[in-house]
Amino acid sequence: MSTGPKQILILGGGFAGVYTARCLEKLLRSEEASITLINRENYWVYQPMLPEVISGSIGLTNVVSPIRRLCPRTNLIMREVEDIDLKRQIVTISPGFRPRQIGLKYDYLVITLGNVTNFHGMPGLIENAMPFRTLADAMVLRNHLIHVLEEADVEEDQELRRELLTFVVAGGGFSGVEVMAELNDFVCSVKRNYLRLRNEPHRCVIVQAGDRILPEMSEVLAISAQRILRKRGVEIILNDRLKAATSERAILQSGTEIPCKTLISTVPSALPPVVQKLDCPKEHGKLLVNAGLELKDYEGKVWALGDCAYMTTIAGTKVPPTAQHAIREATIAAINIAAALHGGKRAEFGFEGLGTLGSLGYGAAVAQICGVKVSGFLAWCLWRWIYLMKMPGLNRKVRITIDWILRLLFPPELAQTRVAFESGIRNQYFEPGDIIFRQGDLGDSVYVIEDGECDALRDQNGEEQLLATLGRGEYFGEMALLSDRTRNATIRARTAMNVSIIPKEDFNKLRRSVPIFEDVFTELASRRAEAGSSCLSAEPSMPDGSSATAS
Amino acid sequence: MSTGPKQILILGGGFAGVYTARCLEKLLRSEEASITLINRENYWVYQPMLPEVISGSIGLTNVVSPIRRLCPRTNLIMREVEDIDLKRQIVTISPGFRPRQIGLKYDYLVITLGNVTNFHGMPGLIENAMPFRTLADAMVLRNHLIHVLEEADVEEDQELRRELLTFVVAGGGFSGVEVMAELNDFVCSVKRNYLRLRNEPHRCVIVQAGDRILPEMSEVLAISAQRILRKRGVEIILNDRLKAATSERAILQSGTEIPCKTLISTVPSALPPVVQKLDCPKEHGKLLVNAGLELKDYEGKVWALGDCAYMTTIAGTKVPPTAQHAIREATIAAINIAAALHGGKRAEFGFEGLGTLGSLGYGAAVAQICGVKVSGFLAWCLWRWIYLMKMPGLNRKVRITIDWILRLLFPPELAQTRVAFESGIRNQYFEPGDIIFRQGDLGDSVYVIEDGECDALRDQNGEEQLLATLGRGEYFGEMALLSDRTRNATIRARTAMNVSIIPKEDFNKLRRSVPIFEDVFTELASRRAEAGSSCLSAEPSMPDGSSATAS
Repeated sequence: MSTGPKQILILGGGFAGVYTARCLEKLLRSEEASITLINRENYWVYQPMLPEVISGSIGLTNVVSPIRRLCPRTNLIMREVEDIDLKRQIVTISPGFRPRQIGLKYDYLVITLGNVTNFHGMPGLIENAMPFRTLADAMVLRNHLIHVLEEADVEEDQELRRELLTFVVAGGGFSGVEVMAELNDFVCSVKRNYLRLRNEPHRCVIVQAGDRILPEMSEVLAISAQRILRKRGVEIILNDRLKAATSERAILQSGTEIPCKTLISTVPSALPPVVQKLDCPKEHGKLLVNAGLELKDYEGKVWALGDCAYMTTIAGTKVPPTAQHAIREATIAAINIAAALHGGKRAEFGFEGLGTLGSLGYGAAVAQICGVKVSGFLAWCLWRWIYLMKMPGLNRKVRITIDWILRLLFPPELAQTRVAFESGIRNQYFEPGDIIFRQGDLGDSVYVIEDGECDALRDQNGEEQLLATLGRGEYFGEMALLSDRTRNATIRARTAMNVSIIPKEDFNKLRRSVPIFEDVFTELASRRAEAGSSCLSAEPSMPDGSSATAS
Repeated sequence: MSTGPKQILILGGGFAGVYTARCLEKLLRSEEASITLINRENYWVYQPMLPEVISGSIGLTNVVSPIRRLCPRTNLIMREVEDIDLKRQIVTISPGFRPRQIGLKYDYLVITLGNVTNFHGMPGLIENAMPFRTLADAMVLRNHLIHVLEEADVEEDQELRRELLTFVVAGGGFSGVEVMAELNDFVCSVKRNYLRLRNEPHRCVIVQAGDRILPEMSEVLAISAQRILRKRGVEIILNDRLKAATSERAILQSGTEIPCKTLISTVPSALPPVVQKLDCPKEHGKLLVNAGLELKDYEGKVWALGDCAYMTTIAGTKVPPTAQHAIREATIAAINIAAALHGGKRAEFGFEGLGTLGSLGYGAAVAQICGVKVSGFLAWCLWRWIYLMKMPGLNRKVRITIDWILRLLFPPELAQTRVAFESGIRNQYFEPGDIIFRQGDLGDSVYVIEDGECDALRDQNGEEQLLATLGRGEYFGEMALLSDRTRNATIRARTAMNVSIIPKEDFNKLRRSVPIFEDVFTELASRRAEAGSSCLSAEPSMPDGSSATAS
């Protein structure tokens, strides 16, 4: 046994992880224990205010706080957790600049890895539904919203414009409602800067599986919230749920289809894979811990808390996954680690919650605190006051207050802070009958069929001619890229289809650098061109003097 | 001839483009002319303050301003310009959600597409040198700086830690100096939040081709700037220039090599390809225009201004590419367009510049205004005052002032706002003798040799054994991926090499979706495994109880 400081490893930098580290810094001296926290980001996200990033009413970096400043005595390692070996007490983290895996030995382990969005078994959701959990998600959503508004402003096609101006949120819990409220506020207020969208309606839809939104709250407040949201123009679809999605629409269980280019899903969630694969008892898909937050069979060694843990209070209530509970869990875990380290009294979790608060956008909220129910403006002031006070550090409090004041004086930010265009090989899902590309389109990618079938069609003098049917493992779309011409056939899904899309740029890189790749596609293209009937051959695009020129 | 409003098309949304639109909005009525501006972003960047984004002393979105708010009557199209057809008066722009190219007819055209970074003929610069022109560049650099600091904090290897803490800027003009000054300020002030970096020195180097920095200013001020920067710990290498770069070092003309993970290059620049290919007279690699800013052979139809135009004032002075000049050029161009449209007096460019200002980081600058030369704190106050006043709109003035005040009270932001990890097929350059990967490394990508040769070496009982030499078109590194094991050979460049790197994730996607790809690599791997001597085969990684486990 080494006599140096004990190694305490905290996995995850959410409320539970960061507050455990803060608490341990107070309870233990440096000589006793060395605290290390592993998180993929170097900041902690203040989840309650994350939706405000969408409308830009809080500056991007004001909703987060650097972990190094919150926990000055903790070693932060900005990496991914790749493996947890409970038996050997080793955590493996992802490599940095050098491709070497690093194993960290621990004496005490705290697992606070939260949960992840899991779209397994829901076709097209991974490709088309945006999650909303992290700061990156919020930034991506904000940039996407600005993108669709910009596109809607220049789009001539009425139908596509409507699609661009439709926003769907799947999940009517706190998270979904707050995201939709902020999104609606943002679109309403910036639309006036778009010359052609000013008088165009937009559509906001919440889809909720239950018979009311906000299941976390009392029915009275939920009904009140529904009334407020509807008054602000938000449609609420109840007793239905998202089943599938394509790049052009959300498909609900009931068969309802909503054409949209923006689909946000706040459900469902699952344990992160690295936690999922742990060989220890689970309950409701979470790690089962006792009232002292210890993992079964690893008492006194491993603690699990926050959204990845399942526990009941001493009184037997199930602990919900909220910030107020995570903070209290962190205190209990820290006390128990200190107790394990140098003896002392262990603690058990008995916190029953103070109440719930939900924002409904600018100037409206619902609150249920110590049995008192409030909704509307008063609840909103309460919301802002409570969450501002709970934000740790004077720095952020000042900055957020200033942001809120400036929001009264000036319109919301409209600059898109996109760093890179989406690229790389990706997947896409198509429903039967969907058009994958149209004759005359630019050739921007090559497609490989993962499963399903599609028809290649050519429009000849107004008549639709079936050229071929393609299936699993077949390619299409390469000719237009090889010859730099427009598509001369339309590809339509015959069944539900999953395809891999290789963008032009990657395709060309592969052709240049992987000789065999070039050979295969050149051979394929010439065979198809010879066959004549080829749906994949191309004809020169006809520059039409009035409206288009070829690239 | 149509009788509707004339179509005015402005390409580019920098100082020149946005100010032309603003000026035209004042000079022309909506019935006379429809103004359209095409820019890849929906915001205009206030270039003088862009370096302040690095240190976070100005919030990310406060250094930009939405074009829609600056030019409320102008149609903004957020797309790329793909082609300019001067003869047929059509501009082609990139497609949006639908892959169709759009051609826009114009009556009057204003080209303000600026310039782009051009690393042509400088090996490894495209891959390893970061440009600094756009907001995206500034964000990427800021996130990169935080990344290297985080990595340096956990790195055990002294040499690699030094490399991570070395920052090189190539180009000692205004842009390079301001970037380095802000970067140095940022690193100095956030280092104290890193437990292990607090007392570690970092290295900042400016490389300048001339015999002094700031060639735009008088020698006295440049010498003074050099003294100030050196006092702040910045090394200045004169009479040398960047020649090549690898992912591990900057290589100078003189042969000096600087090991570093951060290399920023503010030189050299060239016309954007779409402007480059225009068939019209050019001078010094820019579009030649007359004193009325009209393009030769297209007088009264096409104007070019800003950094992409070459012109002399009426007095014969060459016009430098600065904001103050671009703004005056915009006014002249707008007046001349109005004159072409409804008659009136044409104007010619005669502005000779008011002076130059350069920031040297917090609390120091150099200024040369109307013949008066100032340096130090006074110049810095002048710098801030002048640029704050020049920022259009009360909104930004207030926000920037608040940012500056908060900077006095609180330490700089430390949160990394990275949206996505770098991925996709990329290129890399290696110098002779460089290690591409080492025996025992994790297999994270497959390599294809574009040109050059490398040796595959295996360490056997401390002896280095040459397994094979690979050349152009050959692959390596696939076995470790196919078998999910670590590398069991070291690959070292024999000559200068360019390789394509296919990351594990893309490689696996390709294997899954392109059957032929899978076949080729499986066959190659089994052939190599059989050959035995294979440098590309793999052996199971040996989990070493004390420090590492296999993934």
